[in-house]
Amino acid sequence: MSTAAVRTAAAAGAGLIVLPELVTSGYMFESMAEARSLAITPAHPVFTDWAAAAGEAVVVGGFCELGDDGLVYNSAAVVDSDGVIAVYRKTHLWDTEKRVFTPGSDAPEVLATRVGSLGVLICYDLEFPEMTRGLALSGAEILAVPTNWPLAPRPADEHPPEVGMAMASARANRIFIACCDRSGTERGQEWTEGTAIIDISGWVIATPEPGGGEFPIAQAVIDPSQSWDKYISPANDVFADRRRDIYAQFAL
Amino acid sequence: MSTAAVRTAAAAGAGLIVLPELVTSGYMFESMAEARSLAITPAHPVFTDWAAAAGEAVVVGGFCELGDDGLVYNSAAVVDSDGVIAVYRKTHLWDTEKRVFTPGSDAPEVLATRVGSLGVLICYDLEFPEMTRGLALSGAEILAVPTNWPLAPRPADEHPPEVGMAMASARANRIFIACCDRSGTERGQEWTEGTAIIDISGWVIATPEPGGGEFPIAQAVIDPSQSWDKYISPANDVFADRRRDIYAQFAL
Repeated sequence: MSTAAVRTAAAAGAGLIVLPELVTSGYMFESMAEARSLAITPAHPVFTDWAAAAGEAVVVGGFCELGDDGLVYNSAAVVDSDGVIAVYRKTHLWDTEKRVFTPGSDAPEVLATRVGSLGVLICYDLEFPEMTRGLALSGAEILAVPTNWPLAPRPADEHPPEVGMAMASARANRIFIACCDRSGTERGQEWTEGTAIIDISGWVIATPEPGGGEFPIAQAVIDPSQSWDKYISPANDVFADRRRDIYAQFAL
Repeated sequence: MSTAAVRTAAAAGAGLIVLPELVTSGYMFESMAEARSLAITPAHPVFTDWAAAAGEAVVVGGFCELGDDGLVYNSAAVVDSDGVIAVYRKTHLWDTEKRVFTPGSDAPEVLATRVGSLGVLICYDLEFPEMTRGLALSGAEILAVPTNWPLAPRPADEHPPEVGMAMASARANRIFIACCDRSGTERGQEWTEGTAIIDISGWVIATPEPGGGEFPIAQAVIDPSQSWDKYISPANDVFADRRRDIYAQFAL
């Protein structure tokens, strides 16, 4: 199913295709044993399928990873037509994930891809400003964020809170952020359907059409090089304005 | 005028009263000389007046500070009925402020006040997640943020972008944030009128009534001790979940 989504998006002309977290397995595991039974390695044929379907696009999607060490990770693969370029293991685990997954021990790297400098975070990682700041300072133009956001109550007329976090991080760092959430319900868990593409000023520039069919798609044309302009006013470069001397006075 | 606002808010039962940035002087200086002519020290009678008007409340307001060193700072004073408790000098200067002010060299401290553990930031400081994180990790329950937000275009139905930043920081750190902005126009500069009180989940719980008279006031009753509950899910403490080992891999 994920391969069909990649094919659909590639046919629509996408350069960067972001799929949800754990798209190969689903999220609502009944047990650790079930998660382990669905865990795959980066050598799994599904990634070969993504590569074949990607055309000129870069694909980022979540999977349940069986590590060389025998442990199970909540991971994301970055794939282009040559195959798997990189794997990132989620470092901030949400709620019951802590019973299933081992958290990653490596920061995500900024990847030089066909569509620009790309950073990957997974879901709850995004709520830690250190992660978005770290990737942006490392040169990321775009963050691709596979998510599975459980629906939570929110005030009328507000974005999902996770989208608000992404908007703030995009603005703070003047980077693009593309979040791909789930839709519908899985084993009783309703999803937020918060898929959004956010520009370097922190505004949502694309969400899926309501009732968007089997694979609701948000799409936008962006110029990743815009993110190299860190000026938010004629005299304010949001990176140059950082005060490391002040931050060093806190116990960060 | 600022003293009248303090008196009004104290009469309304406020425990914490936040005034705008540079409330004693105005923001739109015509020249460095004008700023210097309006600069005052923490010994200025206006703070005695605030203290007298405050009753049981704590007051945070911005002023144009003449330092012992002869330099001019964009500062905020924290005042209670005993007088000036603390002064913070803005560390991240916005746009033309760089021509007028010297940036502060000290991180804001978390103050034990009558209304709880209080941190102070000024306007653009708020856009640096390190500042909000630093104060929250130092134990701040509430951030008081005097601002002068120049009105900028934004999409319909969106909060002012600076309010969005505050909402994200409140949620990331589970702290309260009270921002006091200007209203109206000063020397041709239209203000955002973004005054907002934000709860520990990142939602705006109070803004001024439209057409709120001479001193539009946002007011809310909060329990600052809520901010000690850092749990955002049954298994997720937003501070305990931080991965300093990962952040150390970035050039933060």
